[in-house]
Amino acid sequence: MFRPTVAPMGWNSWDCYGAAVTEKEVRQNAQFMAENLKEYGWEYVVVDIQWYEPGATSHEYRPFADICIDEFGRPIPAVNRFPSAEGGKGFAPLAEYVHSLGLKFGIHIMRGIPRISVHRDTPIKGTDKTAKMAARSNSICYWNPDMYGVTNDEAGRAYYDSIFELYASWGVDFIKCDDICRELPREEDELKMLSESLQNCGRDMVLSLSPGPALLEKSELYKQVSNMWRITDDFWDDWKLLYAMFERAEKWSIHAGAGYYPDADMLPIGPIRQDYDKNNRTKFTEDEQITMMTLWSIMRSPLMIGGEMTGFDDFTMGLITNEQILKMHSNSRHAHQVFRRNIEGHETIVWVAASCEGGMYIAIFNASGEDGEMNIKLSELEINVPVTATELWSGQTGEFTENINVSIAAHGAMAFYLS
Amino acid sequence: MFRPTVAPMGWNSWDCYGAAVTEKEVRQNAQFMAENLKEYGWEYVVVDIQWYEPGATSHEYRPFADICIDEFGRPIPAVNRFPSAEGGKGFAPLAEYVHSLGLKFGIHIMRGIPRISVHRDTPIKGTDKTAKMAARSNSICYWNPDMYGVTNDEAGRAYYDSIFELYASWGVDFIKCDDICRELPREEDELKMLSESLQNCGRDMVLSLSPGPALLEKSELYKQVSNMWRITDDFWDDWKLLYAMFERAEKWSIHAGAGYYPDADMLPIGPIRQDYDKNNRTKFTEDEQITMMTLWSIMRSPLMIGGEMTGFDDFTMGLITNEQILKMHSNSRHAHQVFRRNIEGHETIVWVAASCEGGMYIAIFNASGEDGEMNIKLSELEINVPVTATELWSGQTGEFTENINVSIAAHGAMAFYLS
Amino acid sequence: MFRPTVAPMGWNSWDCYGAAVTEKEVRQNAQFMAENLKEYGWEYVVVDIQWYEPGATSHEYRPFADICIDEFGRPIPAVNRFPSAEGGKGFAPLAEYVHSLGLKFGIHIMRGIPRISVHRDTPIKGTDKTAKMAARSNSICYWNPDMYGVTNDEAGRAYYDSIFELYASWGVDFIKCDDICRELPREEDELKMLSESLQNCGRDMVLSLSPGPALLEKSELYKQVSNMWRITDDFWDDWKLLYAMFERAEKWSIHAGAGYYPDADMLPIGPIRQDYDKNNRTKFTEDEQITMMTLWSIMRSPLMIGGEMTGFDDFTMGLITNEQILKMHSNSRHAHQVFRRNIEGHETIVWVAASCEGGMYIAIFNASGEDGEMNIKLSELEINVPVTATELWSGQTGEFTENINVSIAAHGAMAFYLS
Amino acid sequence: MFRPTVAPMGWNSWDCYGAAVTEKEVRQNAQFMAENLKEYGWEYVVVDIQWYEPGATSHEYRPFADICIDEFGRPIPAVNRFPSAEGGKGFAPLAEYVHSLGLKFGIHIMRGIPRISVHRDTPIKGTDKTAKMAARSNSICYWNPDMYGVTNDEAGRAYYDSIFELYASWGVDFIKCDDICRELPREEDELKMLSESLQNCGRDMVLSLSPGPALLEKSELYKQVSNMWRITDDFWDDWKLLYAMFERAEKWSIHAGAGYYPDADMLPIGPIRQDYDKNNRTKFTEDEQITMMTLWSIMRSPLMIGGEMTGFDDFTMGLITNEQILKMHSNSRHAHQVFRRNIEGHETIVWVAASCEGGMYIAIFNASGEDGEMNIKLSELEINVPVTATELWSGQTGEFTENINVSIAAHGAMAFYLS
Repeated sequence: MFRPTVAPMGWNSWDCYGAAVTEKEVRQNAQFMAENLKEYGWEYVVVDIQWYEPGATSHEYRPFADICIDEFGRPIPAVNRFPSAEGGKGFAPLAEYVHSLGLKFGIHIMRGIPRISVHRDTPIKGTDKTAKMAARSNSICYWNPDMYGVTNDEAGRAYYDSIFELYASWGVDFIKCDDICRELPREEDELKMLSESLQNCGRDMVLSLSPGPALLEKSELYKQVSNMWRITDDFWDDWKLLYAMFERAEKWSIHAGAGYYPDADMLPIGPIRQDYDKNNRTKFTEDEQITMMTLWSIMRSPLMIGGEMTGFDDFTMGLITNEQILKMHSNSRHAHQVFRRNIEGHETIVWVAASCEGGMYIAIFNASGEDGEMNIKLSELEINVPVTATELWSGQTGEFTENINVSIAAHGAMAFYLS
Repeated sequence: MFRPTVAPMGWNSWDCYGAAVTEKEVRQNAQFMAENLKEYGWEYVVVDIQWYEPGATSHEYRPFADICIDEFGRPIPAVNRFPSAEGGKGFAPLAEYVHSLGLKFGIHIMRGIPRISVHRDTPIKGTDKTAKMAARSNSICYWNPDMYGVTNDEAGRAYYDSIFELYASWGVDFIKCDDICRELPREEDELKMLSESLQNCGRDMVLSLSPGPALLEKSELYKQVSNMWRITDDFWDDWKLLYAMFERAEKWSIHAGAGYYPDADMLPIGPIRQDYDKNNRTKFTEDEQITMMTLWSIMRSPLMIGGEMTGFDDFTMGLITNEQILKMHSNSRHAHQVFRRNIEGHETIVWVAASCEGGMYIAIFNASGEDGEMNIKLSELEINVPVTATELWSGQTGEFTENINVSIAAHGAMAFYLS
Repeated sequence: MFRPTVAPMGWNSWDCYGAAVTEKEVRQNAQFMAENLKEYGWEYVVVDIQWYEPGATSHEYRPFADICIDEFGRPIPAVNRFPSAEGGKGFAPLAEYVHSLGLKFGIHIMRGIPRISVHRDTPIKGTDKTAKMAARSNSICYWNPDMYGVTNDEAGRAYYDSIFELYASWGVDFIKCDDICRELPREEDELKMLSESLQNCGRDMVLSLSPGPALLEKSELYKQVSNMWRITDDFWDDWKLLYAMFERAEKWSIHAGAGYYPDADMLPIGPIRQDYDKNNRTKFTEDEQITMMTLWSIMRSPLMIGGEMTGFDDFTMGLITNEQILKMHSNSRHAHQVFRRNIEGHETIVWVAASCEGGMYIAIFNASGEDGEMNIKLSELEINVPVTATELWSGQTGEFTENINVSIAAHGAMAFYLS
Repeated sequence: MFRPTVAPMGWNSWDCYGAAVTEKEVRQNAQFMAENLKEYGWEYVVVDIQWYEPGATSHEYRPFADICIDEFGRPIPAVNRFPSAEGGKGFAPLAEYVHSLGLKFGIHIMRGIPRISVHRDTPIKGTDKTAKMAARSNSICYWNPDMYGVTNDEAGRAYYDSIFELYASWGVDFIKCDDICRELPREEDELKMLSESLQNCGRDMVLSLSPGPALLEKSELYKQVSNMWRITDDFWDDWKLLYAMFERAEKWSIHAGAGYYPDADMLPIGPIRQDYDKNNRTKFTEDEQITMMTLWSIMRSPLMIGGEMTGFDDFTMGLITNEQILKMHSNSRHAHQVFRRNIEGHETIVWVAASCEGGMYIAIFNASGEDGEMNIKLSELEINVPVTATELWSGQTGEFTENINVSIAAHGAMAFYLS
């Protein structure tokens, strides 16, 4: 299986455009990424759900919509939204454009085979099977109306082979597969079959599983069949969700490894939910965004930007182009929470990680609603000698002899590299 | 709501023919009932599941079969199986035939609207709505592939109105609705809407809910919206299932009342499962069948014969034409289990009921695997004087002074009327 | 086993005096009962918990109190509270007094053997065993500090034999055993052993199990080893508790039978909680008390008065001396709830029972907080002819032809006898 | 709180002598440790449960035994077993002896206050309180009969203060407290109070909590109030228990930190269960013992020897004196399981840890029942360059370029240091 050595970094259309993103919007974000972010390691441009739905207008799904399929029952882009797909070219032209920028191209898929393919009983490419043979009539997604689950047999496998053959021919580098991550163990066979089809398609593709929360007791399976899996249901710009992520992160952090990464979901920053109102911006405070980037980075979650990047302000650009933070994201190993306790009235959460280049990372979070002075003894971190420390967000360097005394804003964070 | 004063008695095609019964078989059983059983109170002739599926051949369902619907998306009989339905006449000719015999006609329906109606988007009769508007894309039956659940709104109600209008026009007297009984509280709104549509259709119809086990905490709801509800999953000719029924019956018996009856399911007697082998006969022993009829009758379960009646032997005919047992079925009130304990090595279960004509019923079951002498004190039944007793199966009459001493075969039963 | 043919009726000291009742109070209530209530069937006078605790002053228990035991480690009455027990006479003089009034005498016991007997290692009467051998060091009551559980062996049985021998010698007619009813199945062996010891003691004694809620799945066991068992935790004068009793009563009513009765707990009427304040009276409204007596009577719950009877007013005396209600309590059979639904804005609960003398009882409860007109069709009760009905509380008689139209106060009830 | 920088290493009397160890046995093991093991870091000598029980003979407890207490109700050593305690000297002489060898001395306690102190109502030292005031009558240990739980108030705290004052005066360095670890959150207040009393006693003592399994959601509390806590119920020489430890270890490993350590329980090696038979030896194979030492060491569990050390053979001595393994135990940081999967038919479990001196530890376990060749790619461990590796058990050094190819015996393990 393809195993990226750093947790994938990129942009995804969902937070901003829901099911309704257009080619123009994808291209403008790809161009922005190439010009401004590529040098920092950002590379994936991912079109999220229902690119095959010509009538999509928001984050909602129309039941029984006439989605676009080809003669073999495979979803293809809605040409009214993705004009370059005209003439049966699918996402190949868009992928080519993204590749021309030095970036990689990804798409979202739903587990399964389109219901309309089944009720039309389309043939499965290269076989004498038809869609009705590949579908399980009682396997559906409860929140999206498009698909039936796929049978764990020759017909089902042929269908999955046929879609990954198509996506490989388009030049897809990243598959975000939905309705599959937390559905274990019920849909475990289908996940394994899908993963094998993807691995056999002849092109390296990242496989990202959604939605969460993933099941802790299935961690080994996720590692084997995928590259990333969502540890949370949809994450949005709400402190309660960010606060809750610490507990999920604590349980999942040790499961990041060689090409597989627990996924804390996209970063809802800058302009988001543009399908509802062009004035929408993230509701996270700046400190909360720093907390989010610090936690995601030390635990090595994939980093997928959710906002419309052409509308990013200086703060947001700084957030995603801090080289020291991104280096922590790349080099962090064995990250885990050390403790979480009340220190002088403030809920204080401390994480550590080793750097693969030597040295150590420490992240300190103020999870309380008030700014606070925090005093942590080095010995609590099993450090028994003075250390030189660089705070990653500010770049300031100093020495800690016995204690780390810091002042952290409400919902804020600091991150240190100790050499 | 129509409220039958005796728990419905009749014949149902499922145990014998699964999803594949034909008009010929229905007619021959109706004729047999009219000639041999009508005088004992048997009256309903019910066509079970998938009479709209031209390719049905057994108890299994074909996924994504092309089932028969009319221009308004409503299931109609498969003409290859029900020839009299030709020309859009539906079940009207068959119902007319059954009525001509002095009997009543029933059909099975699945909760919901056919998936093929939805994917074809048929209009809903008498409205400007279409099937897509009446369907819930994420509501399906997990064991049958035919339907989507129906929306709890104007379009959904119009669809249910339209089918009961059709069935009333055919002369249907009994609706067995499936995928709805144990699905509470999830599908509670749909059950209420369906029941209201049925009550407003202008024709008295019994409403029978399936499958079970029903939820005890929803007993009051079942009483209000239906006439009978299954207290068990499918019941078959297996002692383990019959043995388990005692516990369900104990909990449900007090919920039988004025036109509503907990339903212990059909009586798998005589030739059954004929779709698999014409030699198939019930595996119940004669004593087990006596136990079944005794329990169903004292608790006032509906009595629906499951076997091919034209093949019934003398024992089976005796089982269903015992006037005293059927009188208990009709007159029993306040039936309940008195105790269930080991008496001299035999698991002994005792039930009592009052008769609405005065007097008292007592049923004694030997739930053990060996014949046994049983000795029950009258005082254990709160009877403190000698009583005259008639054993209903044998017709023998005698007097009990202090004890009931009886010899009951393994898995067998006796029933007494005490005057 | 002793099997009373009517559910026990009497007085119990708990609601009024907690753990602190004195001989004087017991005697005055016994005398009152003999003079005013005996003729209506009231007969048991029961001294509740901790009569062996010289320092008891309220409903609370002193931990590690020096309770009174005899040389064989058996609890004996605290002489400061029960002067007639002086000289080792135990409750014999008090029992003799109660018997002299034509009444019966009962006491409360805790499951187990006193901890102080164990730590002093007293001998077990008539054996070479000692208390340490009969005690289970890890079996205690979580809400009362007096006892250890008893071993299921020769030593344990000898201890239980020794206490019932003593209580029989005193003339005890009724044992309320605590910490044993809902503790099943953990303490099932001890319950069976205790019941056998009691049955072998040579004197008929009612065995009452406490506290509840009892376990429905153990109903058959309760019937076999006891005469009554609590279906509820302690019941007090609070509408919420009374309202909740309907659901418990619905489940348990069919388990009343020949000498065994589900027990809805004592009647907190008149002066209660006198240990805290002499001005305390029941907080139940009169209508609520009528509802309570109606439900307890139709379901045949034991009736144990909880208040200080010498302080009863006319209403309270009427409540417990209504001959028709008490006849229903005696004659009711097969009682069960018929339905519970909203009728014209009022939660209406209807119960029926057969009378063992012929005829039928109907109880109608207005469980809503407002007075209401209720209209119930006779056909809903499976009555299809006009009936003559007597309302039991008022004594009014009339005829119902098609409907029962009644006006019932908030939280109130009516009860009818239909002949 | 006292915070040992390495997880405690020592000997405990339980596995070998149960509740019955004698002073002679303690002294001979202390002497053995001083002469043979002290140089490797082993230092604690711990007397396990019921040293105050003169009649203890095995791993079982006598109910209601007359345990030894002083005038203030505090447990003191049984002089028949610990002669040097004579004259009220307690464990002071034995502790002094252990200290004289350069070792540390520990004892086991039960949460609570002796039941016999309570029933005798002994005074609490230095107060006007008595034992009855400090005891909770409904708080007991379900598997040991000696104690009542202690009240969370002035009397209770005074009792705990009084015992730790006594133990500090004896020179105790280590408290293993039982009946407290998994009893959270029910006994959480008592744990906190006990921990505070211990911390205020004026002497550094390790606090070890037992038995397990500890509650993962209470990890932060354990860290704050103790030094080690049992993650398992009693561990014995049984492969099933060792196999099950991997899953517990996976969850708990990240919770080892600065002076606090999840505890996988004692090492049942060499002669154990000597109270039952002098011929008893551990049933673990040598490979299983290597697996155990490897897992305990990489995860930094405390290491407490359970066997009679004077009877250790060469293998066993090698097991506990391997300097490289003990260095891993001391230096391991951020240990965690990397994966657990089937490799060529063998269940393969791989752990990693960073060394606090730089470099990395890898442990590979063959959890299958057959010897196996295992092939692990370095890239699966996120190592992308050739590394020099030393196998810790054998001392062999070599270089891995792309793969780790090893042959591991059934139930065996290897451990590598990568520099």
